[in-house]
Amino acid sequence: MSFDTMRFTEKGLELLDQRVLPAREEYLLLETGEEVARAIEDMVVRGAPAIGVTAAMGVAVELERVADDEIDDALVRVCERLRNTRPTAVNLAWALDLVEREIGALRGKAGAGEIRRAARALAERLHAEDIEICRAIGDAGSPLVPESARLLTHCNAGALATAGYGTALGVVRSAARDGRLLRVLASETRPFLQGARLTAWELARDDIPVVLVTDSMGASLMRRGEVDLVVVGADRIAANGDVANKIGTYALALAAHAHELPFYVAAPLSTVDLDTPSGDEIPIEQRASEEVLTLAGVRIAPEGVDALHPAFDVTPAELVTAIITEAGVVQPPYGPALARLKGA
Amino acid sequence: MSFDTMRFTEKGLELLDQRVLPAREEYLLLETGEEVARAIEDMVVRGAPAIGVTAAMGVAVELERVADDEIDDALVRVCERLRNTRPTAVNLAWALDLVEREIGALRGKAGAGEIRRAARALAERLHAEDIEICRAIGDAGSPLVPESARLLTHCNAGALATAGYGTALGVVRSAARDGRLLRVLASETRPFLQGARLTAWELARDDIPVVLVTDSMGASLMRRGEVDLVVVGADRIAANGDVANKIGTYALALAAHAHELPFYVAAPLSTVDLDTPSGDEIPIEQRASEEVLTLAGVRIAPEGVDALHPAFDVTPAELVTAIITEAGVVQPPYGPALARLKGA
Repeated sequence: MSFDTMRFTEKGLELLDQRVLPAREEYLLLETGEEVARAIEDMVVRGAPAIGVTAAMGVAVELERVADDEIDDALVRVCERLRNTRPTAVNLAWALDLVEREIGALRGKAGAGEIRRAARALAERLHAEDIEICRAIGDAGSPLVPESARLLTHCNAGALATAGYGTALGVVRSAARDGRLLRVLASETRPFLQGARLTAWELARDDIPVVLVTDSMGASLMRRGEVDLVVVGADRIAANGDVANKIGTYALALAAHAHELPFYVAAPLSTVDLDTPSGDEIPIEQRASEEVLTLAGVRIAPEGVDALHPAFDVTPAELVTAIITEAGVVQPPYGPALARLKGA
Repeated sequence: MSFDTMRFTEKGLELLDQRVLPAREEYLLLETGEEVARAIEDMVVRGAPAIGVTAAMGVAVELERVADDEIDDALVRVCERLRNTRPTAVNLAWALDLVEREIGALRGKAGAGEIRRAARALAERLHAEDIEICRAIGDAGSPLVPESARLLTHCNAGALATAGYGTALGVVRSAARDGRLLRVLASETRPFLQGARLTAWELARDDIPVVLVTDSMGASLMRRGEVDLVVVGADRIAANGDVANKIGTYALALAAHAHELPFYVAAPLSTVDLDTPSGDEIPIEQRASEEVLTLAGVRIAPEGVDALHPAFDVTPAELVTAIITEAGVVQPPYGPALARLKGA
């Protein structure tokens, strides 16, 4: 990978600013937990695994700057703040639960310096593990990709949505390496244009053939026989296998089902939330309508007109052909299989 | 209506420039057939009925400017030029066939002045008839709209896509007048943003409640019970009832079918093409990928990445609940009913 989605530097945490890609490649330096929280809210970084890792790094950054006798309070406060940035992706809560459990356990037992080092080490571990997990997802998914595949993906479930390599784009990278990928069809993903700006950018960087389509084209391309499979990421997978992912995913799942095309979800097990029984209980983030009413800084709708902006939708488990995880490919029925894998 | 989609003036033909709405409300003066042809290609005016009427007006404008002894050649030439501007909407060919038949019949029998007056009168008749037809479509469709309806539409099948009143938005206007419309959900319609820029603009002008959504939201809104029906226009309806319409229409039809919601197509009978047996034979215009890759002059994708741009898709007749025409609501099976109505 010729870029870092997030990285520690001597000064703090640097995030590749995903709001200005592909026009500019800029790293934003964040020196406090609050700055990291705002960066997640503002989508400097996005993607379920990426915001989980970023949150853990944000905790380390915050603990670095507070006084020794404030470190216990700071840990509680920064975890709480980061947890409330975005509601849908469960990896965020998963990573912060881990931080609270492992670092919280040191309270009263370890000195401030030791706590700081432990928080940093945990964040670095999560970062490294996330890349390994993505590689495992990619390698597990690659055999599902047919020869000369035209693979449709939505949003960006790539290196930019993880610590590196990607989930859906991890499958793409492994399939490309294995010589079975003809091209990726990337849907542009309004309103934030993750497909046009991020997926196209990172695949072009890796010399993987990518063609951009609007979100409205997928179904029609399927009807014309121009799509072989769909692979997307996930922000949360409920216990029954229902999948919350970027708005527009459900429409593609319906279309794939109507055309009897495989629809795969690629995600780490940290995205599976056994405490959420079904998609009906997944909180769907409602973002500012302004993000729909403007495009690339240009207002596209008349003044006074409002817009809806649910950032995610739910695809019911029955439309999902299989879930590709680091522990292998999970087939339906998902309930028992996910419970077993998460318990393991 | 507080605006004209197209109008004759002393100098020529004026078109409301739909490329710059809603930011600016500008009329473009066109003084030759070639200028009118380019305006259709460049989407200064778009929408199947509107480009049919505009083409007839373009013929009149061209005949006005040529010398008396060139008028016969000019008629052939300008009809040919206008016919080749955009391939999918059949109303264009329908209007030009009518011009060639009615005005062509005067060749050798009438003087240049009489031919010019006849061409102008025919264009004015088509303009006036189109508005009447749209009102009839609207009134025929209104009873299909349930109480407090949340009506989803795609692209712009409105006053801006016709000589006035609209087809799908004709149904909206009549239902609003009849007090049965809660709100219109307008999908933005990438890449040209007819929904965001045009539908939102003309409905807001008429004080009809409109909320903008991205093209990717329709299916999810249906799943959440927030849509009661879908009404769209058409660019060409094949003899079997297959419907070509703006790219994205088919995905909404699939989603409506999956949620057992009515999916209506509102179009004048001039949109029905009995010479095209099914949707498979409808030519689908492929427009420049640049229109997907940039927005308002801002490039949204990395350099070197290509995009697909089929401007239309085909919705098979079995997904269409009914076709709303000026002659009433046509129920399936469409083949016999459309043949009967077109024969009449």
